Amino acid sequence: MPDTIPVAFKPGDLPDVTTGPLPASRKVHAPGTLHPTLRVAMREIAVSGGEPPVRVYDTSGPYTDPGQRVDIRQGLPELRREWIEARGDVERHAGRETRPEDDGLKPGEARKVPLFDRADRLPLRGKPGRTVTQLAYARAGVVTPEMEYVAIRENLGRARLREAAKRDGESFGAAIPDHVTPEFVRDEVARGRAIIPNNVNHPESEPMAIGRNFLVKINANIGNSAVTSGVAEEVDKLVWAIRWGADTVMDLSTGRNIHTTREWIIRNSPVPIGTVPIYQALEKVNGKAEDLSWEVFRDTLIEQAEQGVDYFTIHAGVRLAHVPLTAERVTGIVSRGGSIMAKWCLAHHRESFLYERFEEICEIMKAYDVAFSLGDGLRPGSIADANDAAQFAELETLGELTKVAWKHDVQTMIEGPGHVPMHKIKVNMEKQLEECGEAPFYTLGPLTTDIAPGYDHITSGIGAAMIGWFGCAMLCYVTPKEHLGLPDRDDVKTGVITYKIAAHAADLAKGHPAAQERDDALSRARFEFRWRDQFNLSLDPETAEKFHDQTLPAEGAKLAHFCSMCGPKFCSMKISQEVRDAARKGMDEMSDTFRANGGQIYVAPEPRAGG
Amino acid sequence: MPDTIPVAFKPGDLPDVTTGPLPASRKVHAPGTLHPTLRVAMREIAVSGGEPPVRVYDTSGPYTDPGQRVDIRQGLPELRREWIEARGDVERHAGRETRPEDDGLKPGEARKVPLFDRADRLPLRGKPGRTVTQLAYARAGVVTPEMEYVAIRENLGRARLREAAKRDGESFGAAIPDHVTPEFVRDEVARGRAIIPNNVNHPESEPMAIGRNFLVKINANIGNSAVTSGVAEEVDKLVWAIRWGADTVMDLSTGRNIHTTREWIIRNSPVPIGTVPIYQALEKVNGKAEDLSWEVFRDTLIEQAEQGVDYFTIHAGVRLAHVPLTAERVTGIVSRGGSIMAKWCLAHHRESFLYERFEEICEIMKAYDVAFSLGDGLRPGSIADANDAAQFAELETLGELTKVAWKHDVQTMIEGPGHVPMHKIKVNMEKQLEECGEAPFYTLGPLTTDIAPGYDHITSGIGAAMIGWFGCAMLCYVTPKEHLGLPDRDDVKTGVITYKIAAHAADLAKGHPAAQERDDALSRARFEFRWRDQFNLSLDPETAEKFHDQTLPAEGAKLAHFCSMCGPKFCSMKISQEVRDAARKGMDEMSDTFRANGGQIYVAPEPRAGG
Repeated sequence: MPDTIPVAFKPGDLPDVTTGPLPASRKVHAPGTLHPTLRVAMREIAVSGGEPPVRVYDTSGPYTDPGQRVDIRQGLPELRREWIEARGDVERHAGRETRPEDDGLKPGEARKVPLFDRADRLPLRGKPGRTVTQLAYARAGVVTPEMEYVAIRENLGRARLREAAKRDGESFGAAIPDHVTPEFVRDEVARGRAIIPNNVNHPESEPMAIGRNFLVKINANIGNSAVTSGVAEEVDKLVWAIRWGADTVMDLSTGRNIHTTREWIIRNSPVPIGTVPIYQALEKVNGKAEDLSWEVFRDTLIEQAEQGVDYFTIHAGVRLAHVPLTAERVTGIVSRGGSIMAKWCLAHHRESFLYERFEEICEIMKAYDVAFSLGDGLRPGSIADANDAAQFAELETLGELTKVAWKHDVQTMIEGPGHVPMHKIKVNMEKQLEECGEAPFYTLGPLTTDIAPGYDHITSGIGAAMIGWFGCAMLCYVTPKEHLGLPDRDDVKTGVITYKIAAHAADLAKGHPAAQERDDALSRARFEFRWRDQFNLSLDPETAEKFHDQTLPAEGAKLAHFCSMCGPKFCSMKISQEVRDAARKGMDEMSDTFRANGGQIYVAPEPRAGG
Repeated sequence: MPDTIPVAFKPGDLPDVTTGPLPASRKVHAPGTLHPTLRVAMREIAVSGGEPPVRVYDTSGPYTDPGQRVDIRQGLPELRREWIEARGDVERHAGRETRPEDDGLKPGEARKVPLFDRADRLPLRGKPGRTVTQLAYARAGVVTPEMEYVAIRENLGRARLREAAKRDGESFGAAIPDHVTPEFVRDEVARGRAIIPNNVNHPESEPMAIGRNFLVKINANIGNSAVTSGVAEEVDKLVWAIRWGADTVMDLSTGRNIHTTREWIIRNSPVPIGTVPIYQALEKVNGKAEDLSWEVFRDTLIEQAEQGVDYFTIHAGVRLAHVPLTAERVTGIVSRGGSIMAKWCLAHHRESFLYERFEEICEIMKAYDVAFSLGDGLRPGSIADANDAAQFAELETLGELTKVAWKHDVQTMIEGPGHVPMHKIKVNMEKQLEECGEAPFYTLGPLTTDIAPGYDHITSGIGAAMIGWFGCAMLCYVTPKEHLGLPDRDDVKTGVITYKIAAHAADLAKGHPAAQERDDALSRARFEFRWRDQFNLSLDPETAEKFHDQTLPAEGAKLAHFCSMCGPKFCSMKISQEVRDAARKGMDEMSDTFRANGGQIYVAPEPRAGG
């Protein structure tokens, strides 16, 4: 069959991904203690002026490590393979055979995109009767290498700051520790308050945690479409998104080549990959929602679990009885998965098979450690529909399903809205914590107004920062193209940076002990006119330097003790350095010396925000 | 003297401003009741699909009114002239003579920019012993045309919605009425909870209110600089900023031609103009802060008051005793006005003359109805310095000065931070309300993190939306160039749109009775695939349409019942319209019909945020 013959890349297809470190940054690796072989990757930003370097959380994987050669055709090294095999609870097996229809091809139809050569890579699954999830290990009291990796990764500068760190923040009942221990990670996972999504068939991933007591995470969506992008563009978008800070990536590919595109993405991803399996299942029934069946869906879950998908969005909370609750909405059902299932329920006038078969779904997922992302198929699509009966009825069902998933030791998070005005955001977080037993919340935005298409990264960034502060564990980005079109590479970057801002603002407000270290380092650089340090410490050094250079391109200006806002001689920061000296030396003395040497300290300032 | 000979525009100088209505919009005028001659300008957006047009607040003035011919050389019509003269409490007088140094010119030095020809325009001032402020009238029980204009302008759709409007929001103690009456405006002004900044020498302005119980307003900063822009660019930036929604504009011009640039701006501005007089005063003493004196400052206040500046930022809260409180800050004093006064206080080791002469300042301002914007010269410039002793000591002084200003019937608002993490924002609002007797708060941002230079419109838009919700009356925009360089025309637009989003999100959350009308109209258009209506109802129709067309340029796509996210046949909104019908027709019946006609309704969806 054609699937066994790898198609070669045509020149145009050659994956061209962005590699190399960010400015003044190098990849460092911290060793483990319980598991000495661990090498936990972090990014260290060099700072001048005698300041210590700043370590930041690093999602970019080997692509920013000059020490590692990356070949998209080979995929990434299998960081976790030994850990997984050492547990002795998985077995390799032939696995499900790939079929043309997995890529939306008619039998015999030629494939347009190259296959990823899996070589002898046979899929793993739990041995009969074995549950191979981090939740099962945590409950059994086992601290896995994944858990220790997460602990070291989350601490950042906390060890150094531990004494100094005066805690400052409002965490609304979260339990953020001064220092993250492997045992703390185990306990959070065991309680269901955090998940570590890492399918045994995705050993390339670097372990990360999603939970209210860890750093707030962000997700970026990519995915090909029949009309636009191919394999190469999707791998490039993946690498681009994690370069700027995406903690997980969802592959929302549809149409043709879904299976093969996903294979390329997973094999080359150091971050967990999520999908919405119902999209592919729908392809397999030629897009007729009413023709969906448990058998087709089950087949798709196994196909994707064997490839290595780390979490599945499953809209099992869209029950037949909930559908009529959406009838009077301004914008009805805006989730694709939700509308597919609503249509199925109506067509058959039956309860959702996702709901009825939920325990069988758990049985599949526990054999690979795929985590649930229980989908909010009835999320509001407008301010008018926020927090309505349909939305909250579904959330209550998701709470019920969370307990079922936990019974099976399947890691679980919960998806949330959507479009919500600011005054209705907090109750979403509170109700989710209550209904879902503190399982991690994962929200899209929320968008705080409907009137700014073209700027919905901003309308949603406001809501995302707030709900992150209130306790949301992961924020799904929104790009400027939301509601209007397909995000391109620039839109992906803008969405990721905007959501890094929201997540970091939330970490600061929650009182994460180490979060402010980067703000303080950048602000000291600003006050001392260390321009290079300001750029290097920022979320987007390239843009910061570009904006600066639009007014003062000369390299010398990067060292100058002024900026284009206030000109070379007058500067409020410069004055306040004098003020500082004055206050320290005693002001009487200074008042004389000032008049004595009273030199010009001023040329025309430029306009800037505020007086 | 050369000043009397108007310099002609050189070709390159010719002001080229953007005029003409926004898409599907027309200027409408509502009449007054108490003052029947009033014609209150609003923007009406036509909507298709049998929907009523949507009226929105309109800051753009005559520039978007095809019925009015605009000539920058003539300035705008004097809307308020009759109202002002009818009160009989002002007199024309020769006024202060313009001097070369007002424009930073040496005696006899030739002017580089054209003078605005004031013709016979002599400045007005209150007759001896008369206070001509809206606050004085309000306290005397007089409902001025300005007050009725504001009442009609603020109501928007409220009259129509009055019955329907079920109030929904959390206003934190604000008193937003179902309907704004002229008497309500008078009462809010009389209590000092709102200001209507309109100098008797700026009759071109359309009255607007800044107060917690009115729509949240935004300010845009412009201003020339010795090196960059001239008169033409500044007038263009003014017209551009108000086209997108700036409610007031601050002219932060410095260096040369300050006086003449300001004249061009004021004569052509339908919105209130604010300035920071200390900047020009500093020019008059060649930039030596220690050479500043009460006489130079007083002269500058009168010069600008006679030109028609509507509010002055005055940093009278920076007292000698506060300066040492900034010594240990990470970023010291970041306000230019604040650092100038701190330097003066240190140089002379004396109390600030702005503080000591405050009553004399009130005497000047009450004769023209210039409002105070009491400057926050000690605002924090970094997360580390937020809410510190220096900041709050100054705020307490501003509260004390507010009561002095009110004693003189001078309208007053208070400026606020700055850089503040989310969990420290609310106390800023609460403390300001308490210390300053509910005088309107006017904040810069606040920025919720320091680590994103190049994106500070977003880091600050988050804080602005929140503090607007908590009760801040006006939000000073921040552009993407903040901390890095000079905002250009695109940056001004990005800053204004971002802050319109923040202000509107705040109005929604506060429960403004009419705010959601525009969101609902846009969401209905979205649900019914009325693409043109979506663009026209958005804050930036040009960008929304451009983004849409990047994927689906064909004009036909504007009428199509699909978008590029989900493709032509499959669409969640389309399904949920079927769901709606189903729920209404009764689901048993539908379940049959569905299978009967079960036609294809699907082609490959495209990636979009969320499942």
